[in-house]
Amino acid sequence: MFQLHPRLAADTFAVAQLTLCELRLLNNCCVPWFILVPRKSQLTEVHQLSETEQQQLIWESSRVAQAVEAISPCHKINLGALGNVVSQLHWHVIGRTTDDPCWPGPVWGCGTAKPYSATASAQLIAQMKKVLRETHD
Amino acid sequence: MFQLHPRLAADTFAVAQLTLCELRLLNNCCVPWFILVPRKSQLTEVHQLSETEQQQLIWESSRVAQAVEAISPCHKINLGALGNVVSQLHWHVIGRTTDDPCWPGPVWGCGTAKPYSATASAQLIAQMKKVLRETHD
Repeated sequence: MFQLHPRLAADTFAVAQLTLCELRLLNNCCVPWFILVPRKSQLTEVHQLSETEQQQLIWESSRVAQAVEAISPCHKINLGALGNVVSQLHWHVIGRTTDDPCWPGPVWGCGTAKPYSATASAQLIAQMKKVLRETHD
Repeated sequence: MFQLHPRLAADTFAVAQLTLCELRLLNNCCVPWFILVPRKSQLTEVHQLSETEQQQLIWESSRVAQAVEAISPCHKINLGALGNVVSQLHWHVIGRTTDDPCWPGPVWGCGTAKPYSATASAQLIAQMKKVLRETHD
């Protein structure tokens, strides 16, 4: 039975259930920062997924990345799987712009999160869901 | 014709030619930091690769990650594709330990690179090549 790590649950909003992953939005309005969490509670590394699951992960990552490009003014996508603080396997998909507060550095460990207003997070989640529905195959 | 970005060429050592990617070792002995560069000079994002190429990339990433675990005392792998400074598509596979100088933060943007001795880099590259040969399929 999959259980989302409490820290991930506290810091993110639910967006969608994809085939392998839960898609979440990090509550930090500085950048559009989505997180894919494979529903495999005990895993910590991408290479612990089966080959088919790894292919599904990169596929879902690319769908989300293209959606981030569609719904935000970003011009670069940053992907990453770190897990140094929260070990449960999770995968970051982040839209970057040259005027975001961390550019050109990484967003991890950069400044403190700035929470969304309820309206702003709901709007971004709705936009993401709409694009994902349109690109579903 | 694939051309490695001059900055990547200057900062890394050649390790191996995999099916999709050139594998390189970053000249920074603080952490075992390998870089996969798909031989597609003009691309900047993972989702610009074909679906098959994305599957090959994650496969090569996992092979390298498992090899890093085999040849170094790391207990966590960090993966990432940023490209904020060098836009040519490249993929990081980094072995982390709790006593490395950047832990638990990201390695990108952390401190300055500490070059390997010629012996140390040659030894690490030889170890990586040996493990990759043994796990080739």
